[in-house]
Amino acid sequence: MIGVDWGTSSLRAYRMAADGRIRDRRASPTGILHVTDGAFAATLRREIGAWLADGERHVLMSGMIGSRQGWVEATYLPCPAGAADLAAALLPVPFDGAQVLLVPGLSDADEADTPEVMRGEETQIVGTLADAADAIACLPGSHSKWVRVIAGRINAFRTYMTGETFAALRSATILGRMMTDGPTDLAAFDRGVARAGEAGHLLRQLFGVRTLGLFGRLAEGESASYLSGLLIGHEVRAARPAGESVHLIGTPELCALYARAILAQGGTPLPAAPDAAASGLHLIGRTAPWT
Amino acid sequence: MIGVDWGTSSLRAYRMAADGRIRDRRASPTGILHVTDGAFAATLRREIGAWLADGERHVLMSGMIGSRQGWVEATYLPCPAGAADLAAALLPVPFDGAQVLLVPGLSDADEADTPEVMRGEETQIVGTLADAADAIACLPGSHSKWVRVIAGRINAFRTYMTGETFAALRSATILGRMMTDGPTDLAAFDRGVARAGEAGHLLRQLFGVRTLGLFGRLAEGESASYLSGLLIGHEVRAARPAGESVHLIGTPELCALYARAILAQGGTPLPAAPDAAASGLHLIGRTAPWT
Repeated sequence: MIGVDWGTSSLRAYRMAADGRIRDRRASPTGILHVTDGAFAATLRREIGAWLADGERHVLMSGMIGSRQGWVEATYLPCPAGAADLAAALLPVPFDGAQVLLVPGLSDADEADTPEVMRGEETQIVGTLADAADAIACLPGSHSKWVRVIAGRINAFRTYMTGETFAALRSATILGRMMTDGPTDLAAFDRGVARAGEAGHLLRQLFGVRTLGLFGRLAEGESASYLSGLLIGHEVRAARPAGESVHLIGTPELCALYARAILAQGGTPLPAAPDAAASGLHLIGRTAPWT
Repeated sequence: MIGVDWGTSSLRAYRMAADGRIRDRRASPTGILHVTDGAFAATLRREIGAWLADGERHVLMSGMIGSRQGWVEATYLPCPAGAADLAAALLPVPFDGAQVLLVPGLSDADEADTPEVMRGEETQIVGTLADAADAIACLPGSHSKWVRVIAGRINAFRTYMTGETFAALRSATILGRMMTDGPTDLAAFDRGVARAGEAGHLLRQLFGVRTLGLFGRLAEGESASYLSGLLIGHEVRAARPAGESVHLIGTPELCALYARAILAQGGTPLPAAPDAAASGLHLIGRTAPWT
């Protein structure tokens, strides 16, 4: 089977053995935002054509490729849902020379009935926690997800717009003018995390990023890391992982920062296995209605 | 006396009688960000040259003109401070043909010793509340100020980066893509204010702006107003005006929105008199060390 994790900015494809072992892999920057004129079929053929020519016939896709901006829009499946529920809700996508199925995203609602959605993360969570009795996962990013898994099924989740807020504040406010590029300054990041736990609303603490710089108490090389710690600190505090173990699923760099913030809040960060999306595609594909 | 309220994006000049009455006024878009090559003296002469030729000799300036990016940098005066304290701390600015003095900004520190600063607002507050025994003022804007006045002096203040955060989220995140321009939709604004009072951190509620739109529960013409209400609602909740009267100093449009949010939180909004900066410049200038 071929698994394709097709997101907004990149595409990752895996050729997998029946036991889920990854035989070959490809990654390309052809995320759905970079595919013009709806040329999704041609893009997919370019990426996995060699594997198809070699006899593969089953393709399972997940991610933003199933959104309104993607190839075919898949209706969200409501929580709770696990690998079997997702396998039963796969959407066929017309494609010459292979059977292509699409994993739907998931929806949930918070206590005020505001909708929650995810696309792609459900597959990574299944790949990481399908065997978990009860677990919490965090998928940091532009739109960070905090997920509760019960008996291997995604029971509920909440989204924090942390990464995108950071990028917007950095690129489009006066705060960015006081920041230089560079690797994360961990001491400044930790100061930001600690600041999130002090009195004062986030909107007020943001102005402190400016005044600390103005008074020489935060260097230009530290400001971006401090702001990152402030926002991630707020997210982690709000998600309240104190006393909980949190499975971190994402890039190693971002997961390492979240691990620091979770530890600072009394939680226990757990590193996730790599290739979570490939594992999830395998588990969902195992029971997919292939013809 | 001539009073000049010289901010980041605009300059407002007032020719005032000895009793503070405004005899004439000018407004121009030559805020300090629009003055090139440090041509502040030439800009000022262009704006008030006719009044100088008519015999005026005293010029009092307030605002960002006293910042590092302005004409002369004035050290912040620490709180508490009132009109007399500001008058005693005026900074002379070299200028041919008139005595020019500059009102310094104010500084404060929050409970965690993070600095707070203002430039220009102190003059508007003095102009509005110099006679107040004990009052709270809110100056909404890019960097909203909440100020406690005791016995006519500015005792303490806090800044919320609400307006600039709104602009950044609108211009630089996915939320802006779902928004159309137009006048504020008051019903959507009120929904955002109410949402700020519900469970969930601001970073999570921001994602709700997207999902409500995705599920057809927030129209494109409503989204910006809802986001504005959400952010202003968070600010007003954090400033806790319940049971308090709040003097609103700022543009009528923005003050009207803050008034709605303050009422929704159980506070009592009070409209401020117009020309707060001119009144403050008059009160400070009354005891200035003119030669």
